Order: sequence, then C-alpha cells, then structure tokens
Amino acid sequence: FSSESNLIRATLFPGDGIGPEIAESVKQVFRTADVPIEWEEHYVGTEIDPRTQSFLTWESLESVRRNKVGLKGPMATPIGKGHRSLNLTLRKELNLYANVRPCYSLPGYKTKYDDVNLVTIRENTEGEYSGLEHQVVRGVVESLKIITRQASLRVAEYAFFYAKAHGRERVSAIHKANIMQKTDGLFLKCCREVAEKYPEIVYEEVVIDNCCMMLVKNPALFDVLVMPNLYGDIISDLCAGLIGGLGLTPSCNIGEGGVALAEAVHGSAPDIAGKVCIKETLILYS
Amino acid sequence: FSSESNLIRATLFPGDGIGPEIAESVKQVFRTADVPIEWEEHYVGTEIDPRTQSFLTWESLESVRRNKVGLKGPMATPIGKGHRSLNLTLRKELNLYANVRPCYSLPGYKTKYDDVNLVTIRENTEGEYSGLEHQVVRGVVESLKIITRQASLRVAEYAFFYAKAHGRERVSAIHKANIMQKTDGLFLKCCREVAEKYPEIVYEEVVIDNCCMMLVKNPALFDVLVMPNLYGDIISDLCAGLIGGLGLTPSCNIGEGGVALAEAVHGSAPDIAGKVCIKETLILYS
Ligand SMILES: CC(C)[C@H](C(=O)O)[C@@H](O)C(=O)O
Ligand SMILES: CC(C)[C@H](C(=O)O)[C@@H](O)C(=O)O
Repeated sequence: FSSESNLIRATLFPGDGIGPEIAESVKQVFRTADVPIEWEEHYVGTEIDPRTQSFLTWESLESVRRNKVGLKGPMATPIGKGHRSLNLTLRKELNLYANVRPCYSLPGYKTKYDDVNLVTIRENTEGEYSGLEHQVVRGVVESLKIITRQASLRVAEYAFFYAKAHGRERVSAIHKANIMQKTDGLFLKCCREVAEKYPEIVYEEVVIDNCCMMLVKNPALFDVLVMPNLYGDIISDLCAGLIGGLGLTPSCNIGEGGVALAEAVHGSAPDIAGKVCIKETLILYS
Repeated sequence: FSSESNLIRATLFPGDGIGPEIAESVKQVFRTADVPIEWEEHYVGTEIDPRTQSFLTWESLESVRRNKVGLKGPMATPIGKGHRSLNLTLRKELNLYANVRPCYSLPGYKTKYDDVNLVTIRENTEGEYSGLEHQVVRGVVESLKIITRQASLRVAEYAFFYAKAHGRERVSAIHKANIMQKTDGLFLKCCREVAEKYPEIVYEEVVIDNCCMMLVKNPALFDVLVMPNLYGDIISDLCAGLIGGLGLTPSCNIGEGGVALAEAVHGSAPDIAGKVCIKETLILYS
C-alpha cells in the first residue's frame, strides 16, 4: 500500500460547521493507516458560481468527476431561502443515483436495539425531490413527485447487485402504491423486473407505514431496503436512530460511471463548531 | 345514563375480514357498560354504488352525516385495482379533515419503550393523497401533492384546540420544507399563524426525517404532532410500533360540522377472520 503507482487521488469537501475539523481527523486517520491518498480539497465558497447556480463551484464538481471518488462533510441547507441545497446540487449535478447507508448495531454502543443489520438504498435524484412546485391559485400549492422507469431500474439494479455482492439474502422494496398507484406502482414494477434476474435473493414489497412500524418492533426482519427518494430519507434516519444516531451511519452516493461520493450524514452542527474533540472523531471515523 | 332521551344513535361499519367479529365485541362492551346506544349498521357491499363510485353506499354516508358519530372496522384496500380505497372514500366524502391517534405506553404491555405519551394529528384529505397522477410520457409518471391554506389552517386549528383541551404543552409541526418549500412551506406558515393564537402552548417545527430518528431514540420528547397526510400515515404507524402495534392505538377522524368517525387502524386480517377470540378483543376494546 505504499508504492507511488497506487496513489489514490480523491476529492475532499470539508463542508460547513464542524466539517473542517472532521475532515482534519479523517485525513489523520488515512495518514496513520499509511494509505497513499492525495486529497484534492475544495471549499464551499460564499459566492454563487453562475455555472452551477450554487455555492459549489464548477471546479469542485469537475474534481469528483475526474477522481471518481470523494468525501464530503456536512453542508448547511438554507431553509426557504429560494436556492437549492448543496447536498441536492451535488446529487443532481453528479447524477448520484443511489444513496447507500449500511446500518448495524455497534458493539459497545448501547441502544434499545442490538440486532440491527440492514442497508438502505435510496433513489437519490427524483421523486419528491424534483424541485417542481407551483402555486395553482392563491392558497393552493402543488409539488410534483416524479418517478421514471430509468431511475427506478437503475437503483433497483444497484440494490440487487449490492445484495448479491455482500451476501445479503433479501431485498425489500418500500412503497405506498396503494395510494400512489402510478408513481410508486412504476417503482415496484421496475423492482420486480430486476428481482426476476436474481432468483437466489428473496424479494418482497412492504408499504412504508407498515415498514416503519416493523422497523421499530423488529428491525432484524430487514436486510436490504430499496425505495424512492423521500422514503429513503425518512427510513435511513429512522434506522440511524435505532443504532444511536446520524454520527454512527456511513453513507455513500453512487453515481453513473463509477463515481462514489462518501458523506457524513449528520448536520453541520454550527453550535459546536470549533469544539469537536479530534480524538473522539478519530475513534469514530476509524 | 339510562333514560330514553339520552339515547345515542351511532353508525357502525363492521368492515371486512375480522371486522364483523370485532364489531360484535364492541357492541357487547357498550351493552355491558349500559350505554344507551343504538347502532345503525351498514355493511360494505359487493356492488359499486354509482353515486359514491365505491362499495360504500350513499345510505352509509348519509347515516354518518345524520348521526354525526360512527365507528368503523377495518376495510380492505384493493392494491392497483384502479378504484379508490374505502378508507379514502370515507375521508373525502365526509370531509374528515383531521385524523387523531393518541398513542401511549400501556402498563402491562411490555415493549422497548415505556414513556410514550403523544398524539398524532394528521391532515386527512389532501397532500400526497390527492389521487392526481399522470403518465407524462412512457416511463415518466408524476403524482401531485396538493397543500391548501384552508385544509392546513383547519388541521392546525384542530391540533392546537386539542392540545389546549387536553392540557398538552407542545405542538410540533412535522415537515420537509427544506425540500418542498412551497407545499410544506405553506403548511408551516398556517401552523405558525395558528400557534400565535396559543402563546401558552410551545410550538416547534421538526423535519420529518429528524422526527423519526428522535421518535425512536426518545419518544418522550414529543407531545402533540401535527402534519400533512403522508407524514401522518408514516409517523402514526411508527408510533404504534413503539407501543406494540396497530391493535393498541385508537383513531378518530374529525369532520366538518362535528362529525367524528372512530376506526380500527389495524388491517382486516382475512387470514384470521372467524378465529378472533371474542374475550380477547373484549379486553382490548374496553
Ligand atoms: C439535508 C437534506 C437536504 C438531506 C435530504 O433531505 O436528503 C438530508 O436529510 C439527507 O438525508 O441527506
Ligand atoms: C389503508 C390505507 C389507505 C390507510 C392510509 O394510507 O391512510 C392506512 O394506512 C391508514 O393509516 O389509515
């Protein structure tokens, strides 16, 4: 792991709030482990880049596209300020179509649950996150949830590929097709198509409300879960809660062309920025 | 509680699957408690009534409108069969705008949680349940989430009214306005307007993913939760899971003009229909 030819070039977005401190710890972990990695660091700026319409510069995005591997710290999302969250910009610009969050009970970190061992795989580009919203008339607004065959197949294929590669036995597609028959119905149809190619993996469909109930009653029932964007957002946080919180769940965004952008899923915690104990984050991130 | 003038007339929909057995138990409970109630029973038929476009007859709906109080058993929802669920038909036809589900740890029923004591209040008529879905082009479908000022104000008003009437101290509005700025943004705006009229009640806003995480980590943080339709569907089931399941959570749908339709939230369980032990349901429902 030390010859020059093995040198890995990776993009690093330290992010906001506690992000820079955590990034420091992460770099120290890699140094200590003697991993021949060269970080290309890009800071989130304070000026909007007209080419990306966001605080993320064009160069930052190009860096991930070129290196195909990156790491991002937490980025603050401005609420209701009329510009798009940086997390979303990254997902959309880099076409990061699948968000993978493994979640298992950590020995030594006591919670009410000790048998969580599951992976949520979330469609990461469309659904309720389309950004398409209108005021129809005064006092009546609508948001469009978009589901496409292309994105659904792609994430379903990733989920089954992942399940097989990791020796997992079951894939559960999470939905609300009893209400959203067309959108979630299309999502399920795509999952079923892919499931047929993996007869060795058990495939099941679980309604989102029931899924949340079962998760808190008996999370051991689940293995790999695949779902549209918003359900993935909700369920991955719920699962993180089962094992202790967002600080304990790794997350990776998988993009077209083999791009992988790992990320911290906890927030930027501006209230404790500058006070994070490097030793503690070192333990956590190693 | 026994004079003729106190006679309460209530509508009863026994429903599907185990519904009729449970309805029997419920009636027995009322008889034993000597409540002067007269049930107007309406069965869910097998023919679609053209006036309601569903298996629910016009007479059934009129009965609830007239009596203003009713009780419904579980009704099976056909998945992907192209006609609307009976639960939804009831909510829309009777304008049952708020769904109230109190949820507390039951002494004697052991789960991982013993400190749940909260109430979910769900907007029950719009949001993701609009039923508006289209195929845009082949392989691209959309669902419309509709949020109106009228329905949001109405449910927010009910939530604060309920909180005050029941001596509850805090109302949390659950949302995803960082993503759906217009729809969930409007919902929040309405909640804030109503909150101003109740300075004695603490008002806070919690993002849905974070809410689910906090609920599994520490449900005692919550008191009254008010939210758009789909989040209410998800969170009420999650909360039911915390205390043991859907069989343990009462539910009431509040409609315009003082209509109240209480319901069983568990499913119709066709697999055990005919085998439900009357004694057990008697204990549960009394
Ligand atoms: C910060 C927010 C935009 C984001 C999301 O909603 O996807 C976060 O909750 C996540 O899960 O990564
Ligand atoms: C059966 C289904 C249509 C219903 C819903 O989604 O609202 C149920 O889950 C509920 O919570 O009452």
